[in-house]
Amino acid sequence: MFGSVHVTLAAGSLGGRVMARLEELAALTDEPGALTRLYLSPAHRRAADSLIGWFRELGVAASIDAIGNVVARYEAATSGAPTLIIGSHIDTVRNAGKYDGNLGVAAGLVAVEELARRGERLPFAIEIVAFGDEEGVRFPVTLSGSRALAGAFDPTSLDQRDEDGVTLREALIAFGCDPDGIAAIARRPADVLGFLEVHIEQGPVLETERLPVGIVTAINGATRLAVEMRGVAGHAGTVPMALRRDALACAAEGLVAVEELARGDEGLVATVGRIEARPGAVNVIPGEVRFTIDLRSPDDARRRAAVARIRERLAAIAAARDVALDIATTHEAGACACDPAIIAQVEQAVVRHGLRPLRLASGAGHDTMAVAALCPVGMLFVRCAGGVSHSPAEKITAADADVAMRVLLDTIRHFRPVRAD
Amino acid sequence: MFGSVHVTLAAGSLGGRVMARLEELAALTDEPGALTRLYLSPAHRRAADSLIGWFRELGVAASIDAIGNVVARYEAATSGAPTLIIGSHIDTVRNAGKYDGNLGVAAGLVAVEELARRGERLPFAIEIVAFGDEEGVRFPVTLSGSRALAGAFDPTSLDQRDEDGVTLREALIAFGCDPDGIAAIARRPADVLGFLEVHIEQGPVLETERLPVGIVTAINGATRLAVEMRGVAGHAGTVPMALRRDALACAAEGLVAVEELARGDEGLVATVGRIEARPGAVNVIPGEVRFTIDLRSPDDARRRAAVARIRERLAAIAAARDVALDIATTHEAGACACDPAIIAQVEQAVVRHGLRPLRLASGAGHDTMAVAALCPVGMLFVRCAGGVSHSPAEKITAADADVAMRVLLDTIRHFRPVRAD
Repeated sequence: MFGSVHVTLAAGSLGGRVMARLEELAALTDEPGALTRLYLSPAHRRAADSLIGWFRELGVAASIDAIGNVVARYEAATSGAPTLIIGSHIDTVRNAGKYDGNLGVAAGLVAVEELARRGERLPFAIEIVAFGDEEGVRFPVTLSGSRALAGAFDPTSLDQRDEDGVTLREALIAFGCDPDGIAAIARRPADVLGFLEVHIEQGPVLETERLPVGIVTAINGATRLAVEMRGVAGHAGTVPMALRRDALACAAEGLVAVEELARGDEGLVATVGRIEARPGAVNVIPGEVRFTIDLRSPDDARRRAAVARIRERLAAIAAARDVALDIATTHEAGACACDPAIIAQVEQAVVRHGLRPLRLASGAGHDTMAVAALCPVGMLFVRCAGGVSHSPAEKITAADADVAMRVLLDTIRHFRPVRAD
Repeated sequence: MFGSVHVTLAAGSLGGRVMARLEELAALTDEPGALTRLYLSPAHRRAADSLIGWFRELGVAASIDAIGNVVARYEAATSGAPTLIIGSHIDTVRNAGKYDGNLGVAAGLVAVEELARRGERLPFAIEIVAFGDEEGVRFPVTLSGSRALAGAFDPTSLDQRDEDGVTLREALIAFGCDPDGIAAIARRPADVLGFLEVHIEQGPVLETERLPVGIVTAINGATRLAVEMRGVAGHAGTVPMALRRDALACAAEGLVAVEELARGDEGLVATVGRIEARPGAVNVIPGEVRFTIDLRSPDDARRRAAVARIRERLAAIAAARDVALDIATTHEAGACACDPAIIAQVEQAVVRHGLRPLRLASGAGHDTMAVAALCPVGMLFVRCAGGVSHSPAEKITAADADVAMRVLLDTIRHFRPVRAD
């Protein structure tokens, strides 16, 4: 009987209510047997409609905006008050987990539900936004919803097509949106106090630290490099070690150097995810190797310095082996810092909850990056099992969701505007 | 005019005559525009018939034996004398060079031609054997001809099929051979004084040492390992360096260790020719890596010791990273030592020619390995451009062929039996 009591308690708790909403949302999929909810798809529509229905049940106005975001507004104690936005996204990758994105939306919903239940009004309005396109799976664009909110949506994106040839403009119209109204949904910075996003960590740090939540300091900037090394292929039996110009041995030395550099640089991560050696036969010395390097850091200057050091080290290794080297930068994105005052406020809420406050950077991208162009931003990470995400194995506990909800509500209640203007 | 004088001289020289025969043989191919002469193919038949014709023009008896070898016998000064065999193979890989194998056969032909021209008979007969299956391209067997000569042919090989489903037995019969006669072509050790093979080096040592020829000490033994490392895949942005179990970073450290070990071990070569990292995305930490290691050494004990040290080092590296390791031995072949007395005799001929004698091991396999079961063996390597072989770019010079011919003839003329029996 203890089990069912536990479930009953969990279901009634803030965390239990979040988990219940997440289960309901997880049933809304375009792909039976898996959770796949792409931007502007039928499942996205059903999820948006469900959210609007749940908000309206609370007496909270909600609707779909011109870019397909669900926007719900819980009014302030006084009219004309500025707004604190809470949100995340409800689109998913293919065969997704239930928590990525949806958790932040459900957390906002339950926070407003709790405030409404208590009849509690704050000196600012709260808007919950469920962004429609964070994953960028359907169209070759990403963060469309949060960029539009921040006034940074690129209208030429409307001509981008999905794999069926449907343009974003056509898909928006079919969804019931007015693409010509997108520019108008951009918020005025003066009206917005800040943005908070609750999200699963998608990494193992909180689990390792045995903490349910963590305070995000920044979303890492990233550089991706494509490296090509060209030595000389040869017979594995007939070329003495001293006469070799083995591209793979060269690459291996390079990989060890990349890892060493990253290990010695606080907050930096470097990953070689792809490698290919040609001609690729057991008895042939590889003449050509290609590999990628993905570098991320919350600090742009440190990331750039690391890229420069890696370029230097690879050049020295290749030169010593008389191997030709070509390094191309294939991707470059700056870091997005969370607002120091918001970080401090979230941290204070964590401390008030009796937890050790852990600050950490986000290695993955989030809507928060786009909204940072509009207002001060902050994020609360929730521990996820094994750091796994973008997988049906993605998992959080109701207990951790409960902690996240209490910290979020506490942060909201104690929220103090951080801008001079 | 100097150019044409040079060509005339070269054409008349022993080297020039070898090169001319090699050009004639190179025209005999199963694939227009490339040299492809697989075992028991029409081109193999034409090459065998050409050789037999050339030998008969010299008054040297020649025929095809039961396994498809061309065997020519230049009789000794006295009847009943034992035999020195000189040979190599006339089958090729697909899109081959002109020199691999064919050089040793043409060298034997021109040696006999020169002896016949001078009317010179030796205290032993000389047989020139053009083996038909060294490359093992057509059937999943190799060294069939030289094994049969040594009495080590496995009759179950006759049931092996080529990619068209033709058995080796059927192909032999179609070629005009009698598979039931294979056992009978095995030579009695007492009848054979030794075996000499002239072959292109297929490596860069002679070129690097600026020498036209080198004396082979042994054909390397080889071990091939298939290595699998299993760590944990993860998000390239969200997993801190300290929490990673990156299978590719682990493999890279392993590759560096393998190269280091080989560099520190005289005569040993180690090659990682294939590597595959999974899942293989730029932004995912590789969870699984597979790679191959090919190790060769003229000394079996040193090769085995190196394999053991590599296993130990990889195990230590994987253990330190909490990465699972699996190492399978996929191939193992012992080294074949050339006879010390034959090595010394070839070396003396090299010295008499005024050249610095360089001893080197063969990294590639040769018919000599199979014949070593029959009699004392020796090999003379000829410099090839860039160490390239198994390619249309394979190349030797007429001047080097001339040196090889003079050394071969000198070795033959000074040949002293090396066996007590």
